[in-house]
Amino acid sequence: MAKVSIAGATGYTGIELLRLLVKHPEVEIVTLTAESHAGKNIAEVAPSLKGWLDQTLVKLSPEVAQGCDVLFLALPHTISMQHVPELLQSGRKIIDLSADYRLHDAQVYGDWYKTPHLNPELLSKAVYGLPELHRKKIKQAQLVANPGCYPTGAILALAPLIQQHWVDGQSIIIDSKSGVSGAGRKLSQTTQFCEANESVAAYGLGEHRHTPEIEQELSGLAGQGITVSFSPHLMPMTRGLLTTAYVPLKKSMDRQALHDHFAKFYKNERFVRVLEAGRYANTAHVAGSNFCDIGVQVDTRNNRAILTSAIDNLMKGASSQAIQNMNLMLGIDETTGLDAPPLFP
Amino acid sequence: MAKVSIAGATGYTGIELLRLLVKHPEVEIVTLTAESHAGKNIAEVAPSLKGWLDQTLVKLSPEVAQGCDVLFLALPHTISMQHVPELLQSGRKIIDLSADYRLHDAQVYGDWYKTPHLNPELLSKAVYGLPELHRKKIKQAQLVANPGCYPTGAILALAPLIQQHWVDGQSIIIDSKSGVSGAGRKLSQTTQFCEANESVAAYGLGEHRHTPEIEQELSGLAGQGITVSFSPHLMPMTRGLLTTAYVPLKKSMDRQALHDHFAKFYKNERFVRVLEAGRYANTAHVAGSNFCDIGVQVDTRNNRAILTSAIDNLMKGASSQAIQNMNLMLGIDETTGLDAPPLFP
Amino acid sequence: MAKVSIAGATGYTGIELLRLLVKHPEVEIVTLTAESHAGKNIAEVAPSLKGWLDQTLVKLSPEVAQGCDVLFLALPHTISMQHVPELLQSGRKIIDLSADYRLHDAQVYGDWYKTPHLNPELLSKAVYGLPELHRKKIKQAQLVANPGCYPTGAILALAPLIQQHWVDGQSIIIDSKSGVSGAGRKLSQTTQFCEANESVAAYGLGEHRHTPEIEQELSGLAGQGITVSFSPHLMPMTRGLLTTAYVPLKKSMDRQALHDHFAKFYKNERFVRVLEAGRYANTAHVAGSNFCDIGVQVDTRNNRAILTSAIDNLMKGASSQAIQNMNLMLGIDETTGLDAPPLFP
Amino acid sequence: MAKVSIAGATGYTGIELLRLLVKHPEVEIVTLTAESHAGKNIAEVAPSLKGWLDQTLVKLSPEVAQGCDVLFLALPHTISMQHVPELLQSGRKIIDLSADYRLHDAQVYGDWYKTPHLNPELLSKAVYGLPELHRKKIKQAQLVANPGCYPTGAILALAPLIQQHWVDGQSIIIDSKSGVSGAGRKLSQTTQFCEANESVAAYGLGEHRHTPEIEQELSGLAGQGITVSFSPHLMPMTRGLLTTAYVPLKKSMDRQALHDHFAKFYKNERFVRVLEAGRYANTAHVAGSNFCDIGVQVDTRNNRAILTSAIDNLMKGASSQAIQNMNLMLGIDETTGLDAPPLFP
Repeated sequence: MAKVSIAGATGYTGIELLRLLVKHPEVEIVTLTAESHAGKNIAEVAPSLKGWLDQTLVKLSPEVAQGCDVLFLALPHTISMQHVPELLQSGRKIIDLSADYRLHDAQVYGDWYKTPHLNPELLSKAVYGLPELHRKKIKQAQLVANPGCYPTGAILALAPLIQQHWVDGQSIIIDSKSGVSGAGRKLSQTTQFCEANESVAAYGLGEHRHTPEIEQELSGLAGQGITVSFSPHLMPMTRGLLTTAYVPLKKSMDRQALHDHFAKFYKNERFVRVLEAGRYANTAHVAGSNFCDIGVQVDTRNNRAILTSAIDNLMKGASSQAIQNMNLMLGIDETTGLDAPPLFP
Repeated sequence: MAKVSIAGATGYTGIELLRLLVKHPEVEIVTLTAESHAGKNIAEVAPSLKGWLDQTLVKLSPEVAQGCDVLFLALPHTISMQHVPELLQSGRKIIDLSADYRLHDAQVYGDWYKTPHLNPELLSKAVYGLPELHRKKIKQAQLVANPGCYPTGAILALAPLIQQHWVDGQSIIIDSKSGVSGAGRKLSQTTQFCEANESVAAYGLGEHRHTPEIEQELSGLAGQGITVSFSPHLMPMTRGLLTTAYVPLKKSMDRQALHDHFAKFYKNERFVRVLEAGRYANTAHVAGSNFCDIGVQVDTRNNRAILTSAIDNLMKGASSQAIQNMNLMLGIDETTGLDAPPLFP
Repeated sequence: MAKVSIAGATGYTGIELLRLLVKHPEVEIVTLTAESHAGKNIAEVAPSLKGWLDQTLVKLSPEVAQGCDVLFLALPHTISMQHVPELLQSGRKIIDLSADYRLHDAQVYGDWYKTPHLNPELLSKAVYGLPELHRKKIKQAQLVANPGCYPTGAILALAPLIQQHWVDGQSIIIDSKSGVSGAGRKLSQTTQFCEANESVAAYGLGEHRHTPEIEQELSGLAGQGITVSFSPHLMPMTRGLLTTAYVPLKKSMDRQALHDHFAKFYKNERFVRVLEAGRYANTAHVAGSNFCDIGVQVDTRNNRAILTSAIDNLMKGASSQAIQNMNLMLGIDETTGLDAPPLFP
Repeated sequence: MAKVSIAGATGYTGIELLRLLVKHPEVEIVTLTAESHAGKNIAEVAPSLKGWLDQTLVKLSPEVAQGCDVLFLALPHTISMQHVPELLQSGRKIIDLSADYRLHDAQVYGDWYKTPHLNPELLSKAVYGLPELHRKKIKQAQLVANPGCYPTGAILALAPLIQQHWVDGQSIIIDSKSGVSGAGRKLSQTTQFCEANESVAAYGLGEHRHTPEIEQELSGLAGQGITVSFSPHLMPMTRGLLTTAYVPLKKSMDRQALHDHFAKFYKNERFVRVLEAGRYANTAHVAGSNFCDIGVQVDTRNNRAILTSAIDNLMKGASSQAIQNMNLMLGIDETTGLDAPPLFP
């Protein structure tokens, strides 16, 4: 039994980690931290977990890492990198759900996050935790940077085409639609019920911080620079992230051929489900699960592939993917504690 | 491994049964029936289950019972009783999620369901499947009538008071608020998105068919006749059922004393969580789980207990309770396949 | 043209006042105040009003009252009473949407609001602004205390019975279901989208501050003390307030007789619609309007009237009722600027 | 006072027409038709209109046109064209909200709607009812084809760029997000609450019937053929339609220059609001109104304009635009009965 602890246990990704970890057969939950709620019982702040956990929340300190085998950091970006160097000295495995170690280039981090990276030397040490692309490296890593929700959905939808060089790498458009939980549990005007309900709007067009993460991974796959227009939108729902990607095809293909390529590409991936040609991914069909559903379509009039991918942003977009990474790092079956059907309706 | 089949597998309770049964360690899923979708693959009608099940849907026939050990009937009321007598002849165990065998008195059934019962002689054979009240009988039963969602929430909230005779049995008011999935998957104007969204309304006040079921069980507990005013309301959400019950107290009690009585009453029940005095049950804290949360409060100005209970109507209100019954009938641990935390948010 | 100003213009009730007032043929909007947003343009904080208003927001001061004929106070309770005495000296008419002047008895205010009233001598000067009950007094008032949303729905549902003394005044139960906008625009955990969505829960059972307001008005109508159990619930929707009231009848009546009594009681009230016997009020059918729909039903098994009323909490529960009061105070037709159908769906 | 009648009065666009027409100062509502509800009172089928209308619904016949000055057809496509030739013989003005007369080319209609047009000779007689583009022709028309909701949002977002030939006309991508009411009031599985709630999905990618309508109008503006990839998505909300359009710019422009061009283009249009550079259109800010909000942004890394437009699909996307057309056809002020702020929240 591996001992696991969570820093930032009372946010949505923290609570989701806990929901999964209490049922995980190979781990024992040790310490839970929360800065503002320190001193309270976890079930008081997360009533859904009443009867499952009884820890008193503490503040994050180096001892938290020392007391466990795997430490999840469910902290805001820029906060993670304040703690990681010291935590790494414990020798324990760390899975960081923030954005702080996802980018390989400190300059790019500084440009998009508007603050210098505090420990750029660690960026080359961190592995980007998308198992479908980096499984081997993840198994060896001490520090895994868990992908953002938008990049997870976008990269999985695009990887099979990018890898084949069938697309024009400067004309990709990614239009994403996220549930409100993607914004986290902290208070904000935008995420108040009456502002988000019955509201659909874009935000951060062409400026969102997940853009360089998507470009880094797609460029790596392509072996050449890829740029994308990435447009996030906020949807009036709690969970779910749909990505619609528009890709000009270099060669003419029908949707069945495209489907077959995707099906082959992902045939050994338990958590990617390629839908039959002509069906569209739907966030309602992956809720509460680690699955990414992908639908393929071709706009034959314009010879453009239109891909849709659906994930649960708190699961494959955050917490269950983090546990998938943990399983790999611990050398146990990758699907342990994760292989369950979505909740529908 | 017990062989289980489901009649009516493509409705919401059928899909929820499947979600749970594919992960249940002691069963094997055999046959799935659906009248209008017969011939299709289950994953086509329930895309959330893609990759989990591959059965072709068939129509219900006596052979379906013969081919399994336990048969779940997720059929509409009045349809179940057309099939049950023949299906019982197979000797197999049957768990009926419809209302057809919940009432002991055929006359009461006829009065509320506006149609005569087709096989009243079977009513005494059926056991009302609320494990917290009838665990022993359920273990011996061949036919279990799975409770309605409203009765489950109402009876669990009221049982600790009713059993003590601390209440006036003619003045109980039950005001219930249900998510739309309680109405099932069949098309109707009322459950169209644009009619149900941003809408809160009562229906069937004083006339709802779950009323006699609540009264039967409470009267049984009290050892005397109990009548209630039961008022269902439709809420703009998918899952969840909150019950607010108003009970005049015969003796003066504060909320801590009431809480302690409830906590003691349910102390051996894994799936009932009595909240601390002064906290209120919330449907969001039980979603996707088999839990029933109960909050106790006393309106001291009027010496009236106000109880709130929250369940997931598709789970403890239907499918997971049905599996709890199955576990009992099979003689295995009652919590098998069910003991998981709710999904929040 | 009367000059009107609003203190607290950027909250939900403030924005709703503005939506109505810009189309009101007899008024001109002068000054808008907002403490934290002072200096911004109103359309920046309320983008729905772009193209309609161009005021720069200012802080509240005595001059605001002096510059107008009618001043709406859309401020939090306890804040209003800090300003009202000074504002009244301007001689201008004031409509206070907070709770500060609704209760006649300063002791009751102190008990429920947990703070002493700052100017109890003004309580007798203020008129409770429910036009259906106090139309004459409102016309003469300088200070109108606009009713709370819950009391509006509850009092209108109960008044026809209370006035006739057909009910037992100690056994009334009021179970209310409110949209999230009733909590206002300020940030709070409870009203974050992911906490309120797919969530139904009670709060403040037996302790909510609207209780004494309901009792004061019903007691006044009855000519004797009435106590109620009042239970508010939060619903996953933006607008709408449904009240379900349970009333033991002293004499036996069927629902048609009850309906006819209600229809007669309200026959001259433009904004109360008594539904046909057996129909239920639905928040979706009054959204965006000043209407209160009332449904009457009798639980004949228990000789209990069950009344449902639906209002839009931001309209008849707040802002449009405030304008109805303004019309009365200005001596113009009561329906001016308000007589429009609800928005459905 | 013009006499107006509505064929198909009980669907969502019919009810919305009625909500607006009862308050329109220049019209009188005469006859309301509904095939399946004929014989019922309109307020029974549309309870929000109780107290406003008292018509008994009748079936559509030629006499309906003869009895009025303007007839709105809120009928499904392919049904409208069965009636229009006969109805036109009355000499009355007709505003058809279906798709049947929007396309100029009968062949294109046949290709996309999979059925031959029944009266292609009328296509040249019909005027496409987007006032911002065809105001003059609408004033003269006897038959106006009211635009689809998706085309309205897309064309208004793109027109200022298309007209200037600043864009590559073969690379436009339109990603649209619609509320469920766009699918109408008829029953369907997709629009059931539990299927649409917490669900975001694409449908009809590259195949949706609104595509040729968008291309026809943009090509007309450009004076050359434009093709688009148009992707509709269904959102878990009742009203609202957000369009995100991606347009490669032929020349380099910053967002302020783009904004200024849009502001100038629409400076005389009451119902188009161009937002400040860098703000995004939001469906919540136009609900219940005839406004179209447009936000402009430039992805400078890719020299691509990203435009967002928000409309209420039942209003500017259907019924209020139909009344805008009626006003033009009647020679009265175009804004009559329409100029009111959106409902927020």
